[in-house]
Parts: sequence; C-alpha cells; structure tokens
Amino acid sequence: MSTYIDLNCDMGESFGAWTMGADADVMPWVTSANIACGFHAGDPVTMRATVKSAAEANVAIGAHIGLPDKQGFGRRAMAISADEVYAMTVVQLGSIMAMARTFKRDVTHLKPHGALYHMVEKQPELCEAIVAATAAVDRRVRIVGLAGGQLVRTAQSAELQVAHEGFVDRQYQPDGSLMPRSRKGAVIEDGEEALEQAISLVLRGQALLADGSHVCVQATTLCIHGDRADAASFARKIHDGLRAAGVELQALSAK
Amino acid sequence: MSTYIDLNCDMGESFGAWTMGADADVMPWVTSANIACGFHAGDPVTMRATVKSAAEANVAIGAHIGLPDKQGFGRRAMAISADEVYAMTVVQLGSIMAMARTFKRDVTHLKPHGALYHMVEKQPELCEAIVAATAAVDRRVRIVGLAGGQLVRTAQSAELQVAHEGFVDRQYQPDGSLMPRSRKGAVIEDGEEALEQAISLVLRGQALLADGSHVCVQATTLCIHGDRADAASFARKIHDGLRAAGVELQALSAK
Amino acid sequence: MSTYIDLNCDMGESFGAWTMGADADVMPWVTSANIACGFHAGDPVTMRATVKSAAEANVAIGAHIGLPDKQGFGRRAMAISADEVYAMTVVQLGSIMAMARTFKRDVTHLKPHGALYHMVEKQPELCEAIVAATAAVDRRVRIVGLAGGQLVRTAQSAELQVAHEGFVDRQYQPDGSLMPRSRKGAVIEDGEEALEQAISLVLRGQALLADGSHVCVQATTLCIHGDRADAASFARKIHDGLRAAGVELQALSAK
Amino acid sequence: MSTYIDLNCDMGESFGAWTMGADADVMPWVTSANIACGFHAGDPVTMRATVKSAAEANVAIGAHIGLPDKQGFGRRAMAISADEVYAMTVVQLGSIMAMARTFKRDVTHLKPHGALYHMVEKQPELCEAIVAATAAVDRRVRIVGLAGGQLVRTAQSAELQVAHEGFVDRQYQPDGSLMPRSRKGAVIEDGEEALEQAISLVLRGQALLADGSHVCVQATTLCIHGDRADAASFARKIHDGLRAAGVELQALSAK
Repeated sequence: MSTYIDLNCDMGESFGAWTMGADADVMPWVTSANIACGFHAGDPVTMRATVKSAAEANVAIGAHIGLPDKQGFGRRAMAISADEVYAMTVVQLGSIMAMARTFKRDVTHLKPHGALYHMVEKQPELCEAIVAATAAVDRRVRIVGLAGGQLVRTAQSAELQVAHEGFVDRQYQPDGSLMPRSRKGAVIEDGEEALEQAISLVLRGQALLADGSHVCVQATTLCIHGDRADAASFARKIHDGLRAAGVELQALSAK
Repeated sequence: MSTYIDLNCDMGESFGAWTMGADADVMPWVTSANIACGFHAGDPVTMRATVKSAAEANVAIGAHIGLPDKQGFGRRAMAISADEVYAMTVVQLGSIMAMARTFKRDVTHLKPHGALYHMVEKQPELCEAIVAATAAVDRRVRIVGLAGGQLVRTAQSAELQVAHEGFVDRQYQPDGSLMPRSRKGAVIEDGEEALEQAISLVLRGQALLADGSHVCVQATTLCIHGDRADAASFARKIHDGLRAAGVELQALSAK
Repeated sequence: MSTYIDLNCDMGESFGAWTMGADADVMPWVTSANIACGFHAGDPVTMRATVKSAAEANVAIGAHIGLPDKQGFGRRAMAISADEVYAMTVVQLGSIMAMARTFKRDVTHLKPHGALYHMVEKQPELCEAIVAATAAVDRRVRIVGLAGGQLVRTAQSAELQVAHEGFVDRQYQPDGSLMPRSRKGAVIEDGEEALEQAISLVLRGQALLADGSHVCVQATTLCIHGDRADAASFARKIHDGLRAAGVELQALSAK
Repeated sequence: MSTYIDLNCDMGESFGAWTMGADADVMPWVTSANIACGFHAGDPVTMRATVKSAAEANVAIGAHIGLPDKQGFGRRAMAISADEVYAMTVVQLGSIMAMARTFKRDVTHLKPHGALYHMVEKQPELCEAIVAATAAVDRRVRIVGLAGGQLVRTAQSAELQVAHEGFVDRQYQPDGSLMPRSRKGAVIEDGEEALEQAISLVLRGQALLADGSHVCVQATTLCIHGDRADAASFARKIHDGLRAAGVELQALSAK
C-alpha cells in the first residue's frame, strides 16, 4: 500500500511585461498548478501560456482566485463583502475553466490566494461565498484551503471535495497556524529542513515546530512556493526527497 | 409564415459605484443582452446582477467582449495582437459562461464591443482569433458582427453560427458601412425615424440613407443602444413598432 | 463681526465614460472643492475639467486623496502600509497641484476620501504619513479631517494648517463620531433638517443628535455630499440658509 | 574644450510585487533617469524609491510619461486624443515633481515612453499637447525626444529646452529612423558595437548603418536601455568607453 501526496504550486503570476516565478522549471516537480486568474496577478496571455504548460506536463489545473488588487498582488486585506467574493469567484473560476477547455482539460481545484487565503479563515461568510460560487459553477471542483481550517470545513458541509493544505517551507505555531511572514524564521529557507517537514507532514501528519516539538497537521496537498529564488531546485528536492521516502506524488484529481 | 428578428442591447456596463445604462428598463423590450465582461466595463457584481436580470426576463445572454481599457470604455483602438485577442476572448467568454451557469443558463452569443467591433473588420487575423477562441471554448456560441462583414464571414467559414447585426439608430453610408459617430447626423435621434429604419431592415433588408435612397443590409439582429438618454422608451418604441408591423421578436437562440 | 464657514464638496468623481455627481450645478454654492486624483475616482481629463470649473468659479482647489481601488471607489478599507500612504499622498497631491498650476491656481487643501478618511482616525501612523507627505511637498496645503480627530491633531503637531470638518447631512452619535452609513437614519435626507444641523454646527458648535440633544463639534468646514440625488438644490439650500442666518461663506484659504 | 554627453536610462519600471530593470546597478553609470509615473509602469512606492536613488546618486530626475496601459507596458499604440495626452502629461509630470520635491530636487526633463514615443512623431497634435502641458506646468522642464524629430521641433517652437536623443544599441536606418524592434538585428546586442556607435554619435554626429555607411544623428543625450539582461555591465561599458574617448558625461540640466 502506497502513501500519496499532491504537490501544488502557485503559477501564472506574471503580468504583462513583468515576469514572476519560474513556472516552466518548477512544473516537472509538482502535480497541481494554482493559476492566477487576472485579479491579483496574471493576464489572458499569461493564463493561456500557464494552462498550456500545465496541460502539457499533465499537471492538474486549478483556479488561484485573488483580491482585485494587482498593485498589492492580492496581499493587502480588503473589506470586501460576501457578495463581491461570490461574484469574483465565479468570474475567476469561469475564466480559467474556459482556458483549460481550449486545451481539452478540466479545472480540478480552486484555492484562494494571499490575503484572501487568510481572510476566509476568519470570516465564515466569505467561506460560504467561495463554496457556494464554486458549487454553482461546477461541483466537481475541489476546494483547497488551510488544513483543518474554516474553508475546507465549509466546503465539506456543502459536500464538495476538499484538499487540506500543508506548507513545507513555512514554520508552524503550536496551535497549528502559520507563523506570520513578518516574523523572523517564518519561512524555512533551508531545503533539507523543508524536506524534513514535508516528510513529517506526509508520513506522520505532523509539522515540526521551532522548539523541536510537533503539531498535528493532516495535509492532503503540500504547497511549494514558486516565488523562492531557488524555486526549481527546491521543488525538485522536495519531489525527489518524498519519492525517496516512499511517497507517491499524484494530483488529488488523479486518484 | 412569420418574419422574426432579434433585438439586442449592450448591458452590464456599470462599473463599481458608477452606473451606466437603464438595463432594467430596457430588458423587457429586447430578446438578447450583450453583457460586459469586466474588461471595457462591468465588474463581477455587475455581471452577476445583469445575468440574473436577463435570466429572469428570459433574455438571451451573450458575452460582450472588449479591449482591456476601462478608462477608455473600450472605445480607443489599440495595437493588440491576435494572440492577445484570442486569450482575452477566452477569458471574457469563460467568465460570463460561469456566471450564466450559476443561473442555469447558457451563453448564446458573443459580440465584440466598441473599438474592437470595428478593428476586426479591418484586421482579419483578429477575426480569426475571436472565432478560434470561441470555437475552442464552446462551438454553440453564435458570433455577432457587422451584417455581411469580415467577422461573421470568418465565423461562417469556421462553421460557427452567426448573427448579422443592423443598427436602427445609426445612419448608414452608400457602401453599407456606418457613418462615423464623429459626423453630424450619425446617430438617428428621432424614434420614429429609427423605427422606420428598423422596419425597413427587417422587412426589406434595406437601410435608409440620408438622401432617401437605400442600401442592402441583411440583418438577423438589430442593435438597440442602451446608452441613449431615452433608452427605455426608445427600446419600447422599436419593440412595439416592429410587432405592429407584423414582426415577431425572438432571440436567435430560441429558434 | 462676522461668522465665517467654508462649504466643501467632493468633486471630480467621474471616471472615463462614467459620470458621477453634478459638479457644475453644485460648484456655485460651495467654497472648496475636494477633487479626486485618479486613485479612487477621476482620470486626467476629469481632473482637468474639474480644476478648470473650480478655478472659473473661484472655488478653492483641494486634493481628495483615496485608496488605489477604483472598483471599490476607495470605500473598501485596505491593509495598506504607512509607506504606501506616504507615497500615494505625494503622487496624488502632486498631480492635482500640477493641474491647478495650468490654471494658475494653487492647491489649498488635502482631504482623505472614503475608507481612508476613517482608517486614519484609527491608525496614527497613517496620519503621520499623510501629514509628512503633505509637509514634504508643500507646507501651505491645509489638512482637512474629522473635526477634533486624529488627522487634524497630527497635522497641528506638525504645524500645518488644518480644517475641522463637520457634516450637515450625517447623523452624529453621542461621542461625536458619525453614525455608520449602514445604519438607518445615518444620512439626513431632509434638506431642512440638514440646514438646521448646518446652522447649529456653525453658530453653536453643536451637532444635533437623534434624541434631540447635542454634541459639541467644532467645525471650520462643512461637507456637502455631491452624490446626493438632489445635490445641487441641497447645496443651494444650505448655502442660502446659512447666509440667511448671517453666516459668511468663504474658503479657509481666502481668509 | 570638452565634448559633453548625457546618458539617460528608463527607470522605476517595477510595479507592485513585480520588479523590472536593475536600476540600482545602472544608476552609477548614467547622468539622467527617466522615471515611470504610474501609467505604463511604476507605482507610488516605486516612484519614491527611484527618485530617492537618483537623488542620492546626483542623477537628473525626469518624468517618463506613458500611455494608461500597464498590461501592455505602454507599448501598444492607442487611439488617444490630444486632450487626453495633455491631461495625462500634466498628471504624470506633477506626480513625479512632487516626489522629487520631497527629496529637495527638481524634475529636469520629460520623455514619452514606448508607443507614445513613436506616436508623437506621426501625430503633431500629440506633440503640441505634450509641449503645451509641460509649458503650463513648468517651463524649465526639458523635452526629450527622437533626435531631430517632431517632438523636439515642436518644443523648440514653444521655446522650451530640448534634448535630442540617440540610441547606442538600436540599429538606425538610412533615413535616420530606428529599425523596428520586430526586425532581426534591430537591437545591437554586442557591447563593443554599441560603444562604437555611442562614440560615433557623440564625436561625429553619425549613427552606423548595417552596411557600414553612416547617417547623421545630432544627439545631445544617449539612451541606455535598462531592460537588457546585461544592463549594468552594458551601461558601465558605454560610460567608461565614452570617457576613455575623451567625452565628459553630464546631465543636460547641469550645464
């Protein structure tokens, strides 16, 4: 019997003449791509190139939905209503679905980006909006959120499929939350250390804490950050290390 | 045997706190709504409200695709590549399709807006881009363009359904083209005169020229401008006048 | 001895093809215009038209600075840093100063718009940013903020001139704050009632509460909302009513 | 007697989370910075950082004005009116002037970017708009344009100071125009070859043609492209090579 995990990465975050990330270099090492839909990042040409690249690599295509704030890259929390979140979820999901269709692919999952990722954990009405919007568009789309968090619980209540996300290069806190990026040590820079966390998350369901203890994190997908300077070699290290530890890498949609 | 015509109107052109048009007042008198998709106008909340309104009125829902230029309302011609047009057609069509789906409706047609409407008539590669993009997303979507023009001919070559558009309140020129808006008299302000043109277009396949002569315009859909100050009463006048002349009003998708 | 008051109104809030407000109709009745600078509303052509209109009416020209969020009209609170607020204050102030200069006018004042207006009252570092930015650009620019609030106090500490703003058509609460717009009765719709409040604010330094009691509000400028449906007649009523009560209307810069 | 030349470089072209160019590395080797003003690129925080960097390096600060099209980086020609160009010139110039003032600097020059740079050479009314707008804001601001072209001639007619721009790494054509970027060999990749052209432009007033002949180009400023992969080493090579050839590098404003 094998142990499986999905490796996901945020992609398609370039915009017009500005490039971000190393999508092509990371693509071979992940199983799911969360593709920006033109709100916090991305534009139609970038969306198309990214969907094409994912389709060719047989990587699962997901909608990475974000706040309508390119200047802030979707990282500035905004006082946005549930109605706005509902409508913008539909629009972003629909745009990437249509693009996937031009490559004869489906969109398998949806994940909120940046500030929205964290806002939903504190505002249940925003979870409801994202889940209701997704269900109204296509009930086969899996909702990706913080492992054990409000978004995935809301999606489960609505009988949508979910993915519990863990982070290989982010330091966890004793309550299972992520250490804020503003704190020193929040990002695990060292590849070996991140791999150790990845293996612990997959094989033991535990994230490693700074003091050497553990906290339970039941993750079914692991996030690889594509905006690291070493994104490609980092992704490969996690990919190869997990396989060496006997873990099969596979998109959740492929199960 | 009856004569049928489709009456279409551009809708959903509000943006955030700014309103434009009198969608709700015009909706009862038209059979097809061309809904802005957030590029030249519209935003997710506006798109949702407009799709909902059209769905409730049983008006056919179409994608009104535009240039990425809200400040210019999509009316400033831009040097945009066929690749950009392809990708932005997919994205805009997909977003309104997803919104229509949340109301259990299909998108029946697609029409370029503003400067793009005219650019395609002079740049065959842009016609190819729009047609190829639409076909790749959903071959059932009908392409709406200038009656007898480059866009509809390109769509026909690709075996997509088309609608030939005529204008009830725009003055035609002897070659069948529209008089540029910059010229005096380009817009037919008088409702009676516009109705006369509408009836001539539907029953005789002829647009009326300023000098009293005619030019052949084989239209299968007539455009009602929703940004007229008298949009609602104007739409009603055309609607009622055509019916009084024995014309049945029906969306092309309903045939 | 005369009593003076400044009547200010938010203007230039159109954007591209979308119009908002009735600037030309309101202009004759106010003494200061707060002009949107292209962030929450406005665009270069609108800014120019509005500055021209104010210059011709001899109305004081101010920078109405807002959050970078046109879709939300600057009304959605954003998690924005003091550095961002500093830089965007400089940019917005500079753009309207240059426009004023083309009409041989100075910018006399600066006022935050929408969500930013309220954010600064709770985030002293944002007050510091606005004040420092304004001082670095032109120390003669007066800072307009909530009467007795954090922004004006910060500006006074920096030895900038200030204007304490009172609202003629907003209901106050016993602590001197404004009733949130989301509450019923927050906006005083009735012109007579608003005039009564205006007179009370100017002559007695008191806002009227819903229960008939008063709260002290020492205002040196009164805000007239230009987005009321009856903006022009409302502005005239306040203008004429104050003058009938013996109050002189005059921009603070004119003193 | 010395020969002088100004080396200018486009800077501040990052946007939000997206970086572009190697401004800090190029800054030591140029004498004038053309700074994006938030229309085609840049944002308030980027503008501030770039102005600060130029001020500290004692590099002349200029407004690099562009079309309102971030997605297209101002490189897509747009059908924009003279009124729009006038107003957007004022706004962009004003915003960078205010930012410069916070560092106690003046804006010395203004140069159109991308598509606008080329549009003005074919549309005299746009030259008039830029020149009139600049003159109305600050007559001391020098207009930078294609050497011997329409923009600088228009500026001279209005008695503004000008700079004639030559390009060290772009291939010229026999008529003195630039070879379009779409043509092979349009960009001179080789540093030595570019330096040779730079020296020829400065010392002989001639650009080198592909066939070994020359064309007269009387340039008073040379453009160094900051978006080359080797921008910093390239800039240094031109800088050092010109000095080795006996040319003094100096901003035009410093004369």
